[in-house]
Amino acid sequence: MLPLESVPNFSEGRDSSTVDAIAAALGARARLLDVHSDPDHNRSVFTLVGGEDALVDALVAGIETAVERIDLRQHVGAHPRVGAADVVPIVPLRADDLPRAQATAERLGAIVGERLGIPVFLYDPPARGPAFYRQGGLERLAARLAAGELAPDFGPARLHETAGAVIAGARAPLIAFNVNLRGPVEAARTIAANVRERGGGYPGVRALGLALPSVGLVQVSMNVEDWEAAALHEIVARIEREAEALGVELVGSELVGLMPAGAAAAAAGAALRIGGFDQSHVLELRLLDD
Amino acid sequence: MLPLESVPNFSEGRDSSTVDAIAAALGARARLLDVHSDPDHNRSVFTLVGGEDALVDALVAGIETAVERIDLRQHVGAHPRVGAADVVPIVPLRADDLPRAQATAERLGAIVGERLGIPVFLYDPPARGPAFYRQGGLERLAARLAAGELAPDFGPARLHETAGAVIAGARAPLIAFNVNLRGPVEAARTIAANVRERGGGYPGVRALGLALPSVGLVQVSMNVEDWEAAALHEIVARIEREAEALGVELVGSELVGLMPAGAAAAAAGAALRIGGFDQSHVLELRLLDD
Repeated sequence: MLPLESVPNFSEGRDSSTVDAIAAALGARARLLDVHSDPDHNRSVFTLVGGEDALVDALVAGIETAVERIDLRQHVGAHPRVGAADVVPIVPLRADDLPRAQATAERLGAIVGERLGIPVFLYDPPARGPAFYRQGGLERLAARLAAGELAPDFGPARLHETAGAVIAGARAPLIAFNVNLRGPVEAARTIAANVRERGGGYPGVRALGLALPSVGLVQVSMNVEDWEAAALHEIVARIEREAEALGVELVGSELVGLMPAGAAAAAAGAALRIGGFDQSHVLELRLLDD
Repeated sequence: MLPLESVPNFSEGRDSSTVDAIAAALGARARLLDVHSDPDHNRSVFTLVGGEDALVDALVAGIETAVERIDLRQHVGAHPRVGAADVVPIVPLRADDLPRAQATAERLGAIVGERLGIPVFLYDPPARGPAFYRQGGLERLAARLAAGELAPDFGPARLHETAGAVIAGARAPLIAFNVNLRGPVEAARTIAANVRERGGGYPGVRALGLALPSVGLVQVSMNVEDWEAAALHEIVARIEREAEALGVELVGSELVGLMPAGAAAAAAGAALRIGGFDQSHVLELRLLDD
């Protein structure tokens, strides 16, 4: 049986001792594959894999560490968030593992809600994705809870004083991918608005324009849900054209976490001009076949 | 223990019944991962993996099938060749498996020479690579044998009447990669001469310019020995620039066999503008780690 993946996002991207402590808590209980910290987002994204029990244990320990060390009242960062452990997706590595991932998210939510006393919202995209809970920020979420407009799926019906809330759930794999530009933040916002699905851009693409003051750049920060419907290399080429038209330089891209082999192979095929190139043409991946 | 790979090249790329018969002989005894037939080269390249015994059994059976079905006296094709089973590389998938691959090539050579009565030359690049044996074609090889200038490592000191000779040996992985152009064959030859190492081009790149009359194109046919020293996407970009300068269109590329994950990841990183992207950022490959 394949492991499940989880890609929890924690609201700390500057203090490496906290990032390391969360990584240690996660990595002692499941296989930690990647840590991506961003000081401007003030956020770290961890990629881990494991069976259901290992994953729940690891995530509970990681969230406990975050609750001990992160005070959202002091937190400033470019990326929207409502929790110290802001969003905890459980990701099936094969589509038919989605029920396993959903059950795992619910087990995790129950423990976090009851044992740690943090309200947990199960997300259910597209209507109730993370953005549904984050809109208007922590203050607005507190007000919606107080008004009874929203109720958590697990835990108390009020925010945790320092850790806010946790958004958890099962979702299909996505690629978190950012393109950095040298120019005004308005340029990044304009381009983000053009490439995202909501603005008539690429299907399954969500995008925000953000400033990265620590490096003097701005960023088109994206989630790409379906790399077959919206190829990464086409998005990058489109952003490059739009940036050029705005007189803004494309400095480079960054991947948050890991990329599925199919998406990387599609980009390689485009760069190399090989029609029909896909992961079945990659030796190491073929050696995996049974 | 990892399997070994073999990438035998047989001198038939038009008659699918012969290609299928060779594939069946190989695939019954080892894992056949890929078959690439080219009617203009009149040549097929098979990619298979297996342990030493399986690989030797499969290759002997494939070569026997080729001897039964291919008559080199009737063979016409764009690619240089001296055998029905022209070249049989044994490829270690890890560098420290090179001695295993060498021992396997020698076991194979002894059987082919003694049991099938075909002279086998062990190659030893760079001085004695396949081109050393192919220069001047079959007639020149016959003359060099007759003059005692060359002696086979296994088998008789004269060519097999219909099957010629077999060039076998262990070599590091390489990428066989062709770029197709619409224009005169001279353009392909000029570009091949510019990109290959011998012409001051990319290190570890061998290249030929060939005509592909069946599709009305010409081709820069390459072996890329070290994709870290000579990145495929840079070679493609260079060929595109040279083609444009010659007024020739780059139609597309083709991979012969499979590509190592590292080479595909490097091309993907370039297309996506992600600095430092490599195979460690590909999820499926990380799941392989122990």
